[in-house]
Amino acid sequence: MLETTLAAIRPPDAEAMTAARDLQGRLTKPAGSLGALEELSVRLAGLAGTCPPPLPEPAAVAVFAGDHGVHAQRVTPWPQEVTAQMVANFLAGGAVVNAFARQAGASVTVVDVGVATPLPTDPDASDPDAAGPDAEGPGGPGAPRLIVAKVRPGTRDLTVTAALTRDEARAAVETGIAVAGRLVDAGAGILLTGDMGIGNTTPAAALIAAFTGVDAAEVTGRGTGVDDETYQHKIDVVRAALRRHAPDPADPLGVLAAVGGLEHAALAGFVLGAAARRVPVLLDGVIAVSAALAAAAFASDAVAAMVAGHRSAEPGAGVALRHLGLDPLIDLGLRLGEGTGALLALPVVTGAVRVLHEVATFDSAGVAEK
Amino acid sequence: MLETTLAAIRPPDAEAMTAARDLQGRLTKPAGSLGALEELSVRLAGLAGTCPPPLPEPAAVAVFAGDHGVHAQRVTPWPQEVTAQMVANFLAGGAVVNAFARQAGASVTVVDVGVATPLPTDPDASDPDAAGPDAEGPGGPGAPRLIVAKVRPGTRDLTVTAALTRDEARAAVETGIAVAGRLVDAGAGILLTGDMGIGNTTPAAALIAAFTGVDAAEVTGRGTGVDDETYQHKIDVVRAALRRHAPDPADPLGVLAAVGGLEHAALAGFVLGAAARRVPVLLDGVIAVSAALAAAAFASDAVAAMVAGHRSAEPGAGVALRHLGLDPLIDLGLRLGEGTGALLALPVVTGAVRVLHEVATFDSAGVAEK
Repeated sequence: MLETTLAAIRPPDAEAMTAARDLQGRLTKPAGSLGALEELSVRLAGLAGTCPPPLPEPAAVAVFAGDHGVHAQRVTPWPQEVTAQMVANFLAGGAVVNAFARQAGASVTVVDVGVATPLPTDPDASDPDAAGPDAEGPGGPGAPRLIVAKVRPGTRDLTVTAALTRDEARAAVETGIAVAGRLVDAGAGILLTGDMGIGNTTPAAALIAAFTGVDAAEVTGRGTGVDDETYQHKIDVVRAALRRHAPDPADPLGVLAAVGGLEHAALAGFVLGAAARRVPVLLDGVIAVSAALAAAAFASDAVAAMVAGHRSAEPGAGVALRHLGLDPLIDLGLRLGEGTGALLALPVVTGAVRVLHEVATFDSAGVAEK
Repeated sequence: MLETTLAAIRPPDAEAMTAARDLQGRLTKPAGSLGALEELSVRLAGLAGTCPPPLPEPAAVAVFAGDHGVHAQRVTPWPQEVTAQMVANFLAGGAVVNAFARQAGASVTVVDVGVATPLPTDPDASDPDAAGPDAEGPGGPGAPRLIVAKVRPGTRDLTVTAALTRDEARAAVETGIAVAGRLVDAGAGILLTGDMGIGNTTPAAALIAAFTGVDAAEVTGRGTGVDDETYQHKIDVVRAALRRHAPDPADPLGVLAAVGGLEHAALAGFVLGAAARRVPVLLDGVIAVSAALAAAAFASDAVAAMVAGHRSAEPGAGVALRHLGLDPLIDLGLRLGEGTGALLALPVVTGAVRVLHEVATFDSAGVAEK
């Protein structure tokens, strides 16, 4: 499935991009006055292969949840059980991602790709074939739903051994591809990345260092808010993992297996799945962009499907975005994850496309040009 | 009306702000992880005087339109008729502000406070008492409506004489106060500033220089996109106007009269009207923030009602925002006006408040703390 997905990813359509640039110049506004939204609309036309590109509706967030063997190294003050507890909170609709998704009219699908502790699941909801963005879940229409696709209960400790085998990493990537495909099949016009995993900024930093070559100290952040001592220790852990595994950035599956996480690998697949279907994928924070680096290493043309939702407060996020050549839409110091930064940016993406659909031209509105 | 409005503006409620800060710390997310949204929610609690503050719904954009005598100095390549043509475009729903307002579910009210050329108006729509955010206009429910409250057909040329008399400036300010009051009476939970006026970045630059003391060259921008020669000329025009009138920043009505515009003065009143009603006002670009400086000079506590929607590409906008102590929510190089930047930021404001209403606490969700 990975290979056929990669083979389906193609470069953007230059003709549609030219048509979008031309249309932007004829709309009733000074040329260039919509700033970054104009180029965004051009990119999305290129991805869709048509101008105007379809409105990115409805929106579907997938929150991939997993745990991390490196938790044993005390890189975070939060207990590992919080991953499963937050999954329950997502399914109950009580987390920030739920509030933002309700506001944006986006569906929320939670994917257990590797939670270590037991989930408070409903048996109906854990049938992967029953769940889908338009199916009615146990919480009623519009309620978040759960897909259980656990590759293993958390990764191994990357300071001791590879976090995953290559087969496990591939299984997680293919889970992400499958979830993207199901959401698009159910009608989603844009996919949003979400994540949950206590300790997951440590593998994210290792992935960003591995793919960009930037030093561990520059890509490691304080995650959910660690103290100075834990922060220094976290940098040492990332550095030690990179030294031990010496991951090869040209082998993204190998990098994900050595120093990644199950949600990171699944998100890489999710991005690839979106790109293969030519549907935009709105990236959330540092976990998402670390996974996007892996996706770009698998298929450089996948970048054409990526929209950077926001610049996380984590330093590695900025490094990864620069490497991908993406400018974030929102920059408000968020560092929550879950998909919250992507959801905040969604109206900007929709607005950029809506302009091409709905705004009058100078000609049609009878407005004089300069 | 101006004096009673100023007397009604009070400082924020410290108790409600403390309650909001406390609530943010108990919600199921790491403390501080929502970045600027957390402080925004605290400010809005202080404005409302209650925690959580009401959701800022429904939203109402008022687009104040006026023309400028300084147009004769060739500070812009656009013909003056474009102001009236764009008003027609707003009323037909064809402009970017309309597209963004439809997406955000916001009403659009266009206020002719000083358009110089004839408007293609519908007689029904021009009855100021008939129009209102919930009244059905000629375009059907939800269609933009027009309030005609023309103080005079454009300002005088500020390089030759004062742009307005003090009485005219006061009339425009009071129009803005009245429009804010009507929109709030009709149920608006947040007001958004919009503007239209060919040439209006020139008086905006003069206002920003007058209120902040920053040199004309640092606050004058290229507006809708003037060439190098016109840009240099525009700076000279702003500098000459400031030298001629030597406006006193402690006399905001005098500053607005000397170097302002009718839409700038009306927007200053609109901001004051929102503050007096303790309803947040989401500022758009450089025209809005130049008017906000005047509002703050009238009543410094009015700043508590202001939310900076975005950082316009115009250099004066950043200078004004720093002077007001406001951080913009969106920074995407927009320089269109109309209210477009404020509308893009609206979901961020709503999201910040929604978190206080809808997100579970650690206690209620059974999630462990660190």
